[in-house]
Amino acid sequence: MSTFMNDDFLLSNDVAKKLYNDYAKNQPIIDYHCHIDAKEIAENKRFENITELWLGGDHYKWRFMRAAGVEEKYITGDATDKEKFVKWIEVLSSAIGNPLYHWSHMELKKYFGFEGYVKKENAEELWELCNKVIASEDFCARKIIEDSNVTVLCTTDDPADSLEYHDAIAKDESIKFKVLPAFRPDNVLSIEKPGFVDYINRLSEVTEMKINSLETLEEALYSRIKYFKEKGCVISDHGLLDIPFTPAKDFEANTTFKKRLNGIMPSAEEIEKFQTTLLVFLHAKYKEVGFVSQFHYGCKRDNNEKMFNEIGPNTGFDCISSVTSGNKLADLLNLLNNNDALGKMIVYSLNPNDNDIIDTVIACFQDGTSENKIQHGSAWWFNDNKAGMEKHLNSLANNTNLAGFVGMLTDSRSFVSYTRHDYFRRILCNFLGTLVENGEFPEDYEIVGEIVTKISYKNAKEYFGF
Amino acid sequence: MSTFMNDDFLLSNDVAKKLYNDYAKNQPIIDYHCHIDAKEIAENKRFENITELWLGGDHYKWRFMRAAGVEEKYITGDATDKEKFVKWIEVLSSAIGNPLYHWSHMELKKYFGFEGYVKKENAEELWELCNKVIASEDFCARKIIEDSNVTVLCTTDDPADSLEYHDAIAKDESIKFKVLPAFRPDNVLSIEKPGFVDYINRLSEVTEMKINSLETLEEALYSRIKYFKEKGCVISDHGLLDIPFTPAKDFEANTTFKKRLNGIMPSAEEIEKFQTTLLVFLHAKYKEVGFVSQFHYGCKRDNNEKMFNEIGPNTGFDCISSVTSGNKLADLLNLLNNNDALGKMIVYSLNPNDNDIIDTVIACFQDGTSENKIQHGSAWWFNDNKAGMEKHLNSLANNTNLAGFVGMLTDSRSFVSYTRHDYFRRILCNFLGTLVENGEFPEDYEIVGEIVTKISYKNAKEYFGF
Amino acid sequence: MSTFMNDDFLLSNDVAKKLYNDYAKNQPIIDYHCHIDAKEIAENKRFENITELWLGGDHYKWRFMRAAGVEEKYITGDATDKEKFVKWIEVLSSAIGNPLYHWSHMELKKYFGFEGYVKKENAEELWELCNKVIASEDFCARKIIEDSNVTVLCTTDDPADSLEYHDAIAKDESIKFKVLPAFRPDNVLSIEKPGFVDYINRLSEVTEMKINSLETLEEALYSRIKYFKEKGCVISDHGLLDIPFTPAKDFEANTTFKKRLNGIMPSAEEIEKFQTTLLVFLHAKYKEVGFVSQFHYGCKRDNNEKMFNEIGPNTGFDCISSVTSGNKLADLLNLLNNNDALGKMIVYSLNPNDNDIIDTVIACFQDGTSENKIQHGSAWWFNDNKAGMEKHLNSLANNTNLAGFVGMLTDSRSFVSYTRHDYFRRILCNFLGTLVENGEFPEDYEIVGEIVTKISYKNAKEYFGF
Repeated sequence: MSTFMNDDFLLSNDVAKKLYNDYAKNQPIIDYHCHIDAKEIAENKRFENITELWLGGDHYKWRFMRAAGVEEKYITGDATDKEKFVKWIEVLSSAIGNPLYHWSHMELKKYFGFEGYVKKENAEELWELCNKVIASEDFCARKIIEDSNVTVLCTTDDPADSLEYHDAIAKDESIKFKVLPAFRPDNVLSIEKPGFVDYINRLSEVTEMKINSLETLEEALYSRIKYFKEKGCVISDHGLLDIPFTPAKDFEANTTFKKRLNGIMPSAEEIEKFQTTLLVFLHAKYKEVGFVSQFHYGCKRDNNEKMFNEIGPNTGFDCISSVTSGNKLADLLNLLNNNDALGKMIVYSLNPNDNDIIDTVIACFQDGTSENKIQHGSAWWFNDNKAGMEKHLNSLANNTNLAGFVGMLTDSRSFVSYTRHDYFRRILCNFLGTLVENGEFPEDYEIVGEIVTKISYKNAKEYFGF
Repeated sequence: MSTFMNDDFLLSNDVAKKLYNDYAKNQPIIDYHCHIDAKEIAENKRFENITELWLGGDHYKWRFMRAAGVEEKYITGDATDKEKFVKWIEVLSSAIGNPLYHWSHMELKKYFGFEGYVKKENAEELWELCNKVIASEDFCARKIIEDSNVTVLCTTDDPADSLEYHDAIAKDESIKFKVLPAFRPDNVLSIEKPGFVDYINRLSEVTEMKINSLETLEEALYSRIKYFKEKGCVISDHGLLDIPFTPAKDFEANTTFKKRLNGIMPSAEEIEKFQTTLLVFLHAKYKEVGFVSQFHYGCKRDNNEKMFNEIGPNTGFDCISSVTSGNKLADLLNLLNNNDALGKMIVYSLNPNDNDIIDTVIACFQDGTSENKIQHGSAWWFNDNKAGMEKHLNSLANNTNLAGFVGMLTDSRSFVSYTRHDYFRRILCNFLGTLVENGEFPEDYEIVGEIVTKISYKNAKEYFGF
Repeated sequence: MSTFMNDDFLLSNDVAKKLYNDYAKNQPIIDYHCHIDAKEIAENKRFENITELWLGGDHYKWRFMRAAGVEEKYITGDATDKEKFVKWIEVLSSAIGNPLYHWSHMELKKYFGFEGYVKKENAEELWELCNKVIASEDFCARKIIEDSNVTVLCTTDDPADSLEYHDAIAKDESIKFKVLPAFRPDNVLSIEKPGFVDYINRLSEVTEMKINSLETLEEALYSRIKYFKEKGCVISDHGLLDIPFTPAKDFEANTTFKKRLNGIMPSAEEIEKFQTTLLVFLHAKYKEVGFVSQFHYGCKRDNNEKMFNEIGPNTGFDCISSVTSGNKLADLLNLLNNNDALGKMIVYSLNPNDNDIIDTVIACFQDGTSENKIQHGSAWWFNDNKAGMEKHLNSLANNTNLAGFVGMLTDSRSFVSYTRHDYFRRILCNFLGTLVENGEFPEDYEIVGEIVTKISYKNAKEYFGF
């Protein structure tokens, strides 16, 4: 029997252990998609206590606490930080099979030196231990990132953002890792949202351009794309419930846009035409400037209206959408391709049933200009766990070229999530090592070791051009 | 190699064995959802022979026999009971990987003391052995249930049922287990079915209330909910092809209902509005009286019209619906929640592709009033096998709080299905034990043992308030 | 650790090894569905070099090369054969987890006697080795088939085909295996395709019948069905994006057909009605003459228009359709059954999410006239790998009668794909052997060995009546 989370955690055989130790664990981290606020790095954020660090904004944990029967008072309510932490430890202690259990223990080990496991009985001890570490001089945003061996991280930013903190970081020579912005124009595509017109006005101000037509909107976006590019951006991102695909003429999208600016809500079809048109435009520009595009789709958000009205978005009330839009994905990629607008792209779906579908769709648009030009992104959000990653790797390996996979990202708002790269690497090495162990691939470390290194680090470096 | 179905059946490591033996196997059984006829318990039913017991109404076995090429004569036709049994043993003997193989052998072992395995050659021997046991004094409905360590069982009943047999059982002090009704108003929701108007008339008679409007229908239903509550009912149930979700005004549902009473079939949209409206009403009342609601959805029934016309429903001609209604489930739960009508609920889908979707939907509606207030019900029907249960447990563990899972039920019409609880507990202990064995959870029996006991028994006791 | 692809490849325990060695490996091969051109057998085709054999038309390999970043020049372009081969070996060498890796190595071992594994460094050596074998006298179509222990193979043919090469083969007594045609009327069902009218004209000529109405079309098809039957055909096949199901009157289908002949494109509904009507007709005739029908559905083809315009269909640009048409499948089978048109049938979907759905649908239409009268076909195309086969076997076993499964086919255009039968048998034996090893089935070789032999060979022989 393996002891709990020892050095060989998740590595079930000797080949897996060798792959992890010799080819994976010391690779630098490129965290090419996360939700860290650049301001917090610029200001070198420090933390009040472990509750602020762990439970301050982590809706994964909040959601688990609600399921386990914890009152909202102890989650987002007015209980004390210590009370909240004690409740969390209580429910975490029996979270068998949940990724939060492993993530939390990996963080406790790496960042706080805790080698045991959580029990209701040691909540007090953990509270003291963690807060002592947090109070120490070294426990600040930049030092954590450096100690985590991160060389590049890409934040997620609105086109209207000033990127001033990215600037400040770039100018600070004491910061050894790169912090690059990513271009995420969700607010421009969400023509149906209440704040759309205000947003367009804000974009107008930022760009000092009058935006009153599709053409001027596109000009404004193009100027921001170039601005982001200057600031080191190499990646864009799109959060989509479903994949939009209704090709339209520019004048139709223009009419829809003007209608909306005049306060008239377009029909569902008009919205989809507007989005399709704008996505084609954006992707043509991404290709021109060399941005990798990302699609995150299949998430149905804010399902609990009562809680949304009380505590807002991103608080743990999202779910997997049951719509599978593989066919529209294929058609949209084809449309982009027909318009010379299909550069590098990474596709993620929240629905694990989409794994094989996505892998067979993207294989239709590989063109030999790059290894895995179109990528199937790492197991996302609810799938970001051992079972989800194994399904994803298995689908990738069977359907396409696993060796070219661009690898892991944290997608996190937290500074202590980098252990998830280690988690991923262990699962990857175990997946590959098991194939070798079973005689399904030769025990040739020049080949398999290189694949591990590529997926852990080299592919991302090459793919994004860092 | 493990010998066939020995004491360690399905327990692949030492932790699993210890969990099963020390924490699972002796727990009482709460069978909170089954289709046993209370009358048969009240009358303490006895059986003619093993064919009546095993093949009298078991459409799982019938279906398997048809696939294996057995003529209908030997299934539901006029062959002798012994001929039918011999055919069944013949096809069962090579049913490798099918849950019927395990269920049958567990039943043969527990109820008939048979330790071998079925072969074409021992059909005669089994026929004799089983019939001898069946003829013995102890082999009657009540004794079987008692010997199976069942403390509570919940039947499935129509709102118009008198519940007279539940009454008789409750009054009989010699019966040590509880037999409680469950409220299943499918006939009220099935406004499109031919017998709807007759059914409403019957409900009218039973309630002695004139039902000629939505309001009077709701009054009648409320009176039956209270009646069921008096008889000890704590649970309701709904069999749904798809999840209905089309919010409507009460007057619309009222118009639709009246139209239908006048012999005019409503449109698909009107039907869904009627159903949505009625579900909101019912759930408000369930919440008021404290019923746990169940949704069983995703089953497309009676697909073979020829056979339906010959031998009727529930004879083995149902399949998984390919519609995935996760989004509508999320929207319906939100609607219930907005109407203060969302109490405890258990959701089952027949489609295994819905596992992760359901787990992420229900997590949006947990509110801290109970551990796992909204539950994802145990692997149902076609999924009620080792692979299906493992997928379900894996999805539960990764997406939400496995420790709060309300556990197994038989969903059966048979008195010898209680071994399925043992089957489930073995799979559960193996699932958890393997996580410990692999170092993914600490070998702390105070924690893992408690989780096993909770899922095997304590959670159901607590959740339903027995 | 197992050494790479040794004799026990994919056989993880002793029971699996015994099952494979004693019951599977020496069984003859019935390849009941492939895309080999009968002409090439009749003419006893020889090959220029390994590039022609391996890369001449294999879109599986092309697709993988594109994903791995190889330029089109080296795939379907004007690079030399040797350059193409070198590129292929280069990317194959790191194709861990991909079925092409195993297939290629099994072919290298069986047909070329190569026992090592591919590396960039041995491309030259392999080029020489393979070409030397290819140049030898024995390396020709017929000898390869014979040496592969194939007794029957069924090609895939258009109703208008003359079947002259099948005739020639049948008359040639030196050919010991049977080469039978299969009836695939996709061109007749594809009423929406540009070439439809031309095709109908061709069918007119071949049958010497004037086809200007549904009735005359049906007469022509029936004459071809009888013609195929005379030539030894026992199987039909249908490639369908989705399952069509919109019942219609004959006169509606007739009107649609005439409209189309007059150059007017019917509506989507009219097309589906035409297809549904024609499928009912065809299946009534299949049942009459004793053809097994096959449905291959769920493939979205030719997704990359640019590449389609450059190099045409079947070049590696197809994907899994995200539509799951299980409900329509159930309804269509019911319609066939109601029209006495449901004989034996094999259903394949490209979407692995359909596995359990298909197994529960077909179980509604088994009627005891044959073991597994309606079959769920072997893991198809993108699913034709270890993980896909295991999912398929697991679904079959849990939902229906695995022992009656008709087994493997190559679905291939290549003469060296027969090793896939060996691949399948190993996976099958490992699947069954593991159940025995784990104590889930008794170690009784009379039973399990017989199941292996049936699925490897006997079932196909019996099911198709060879």
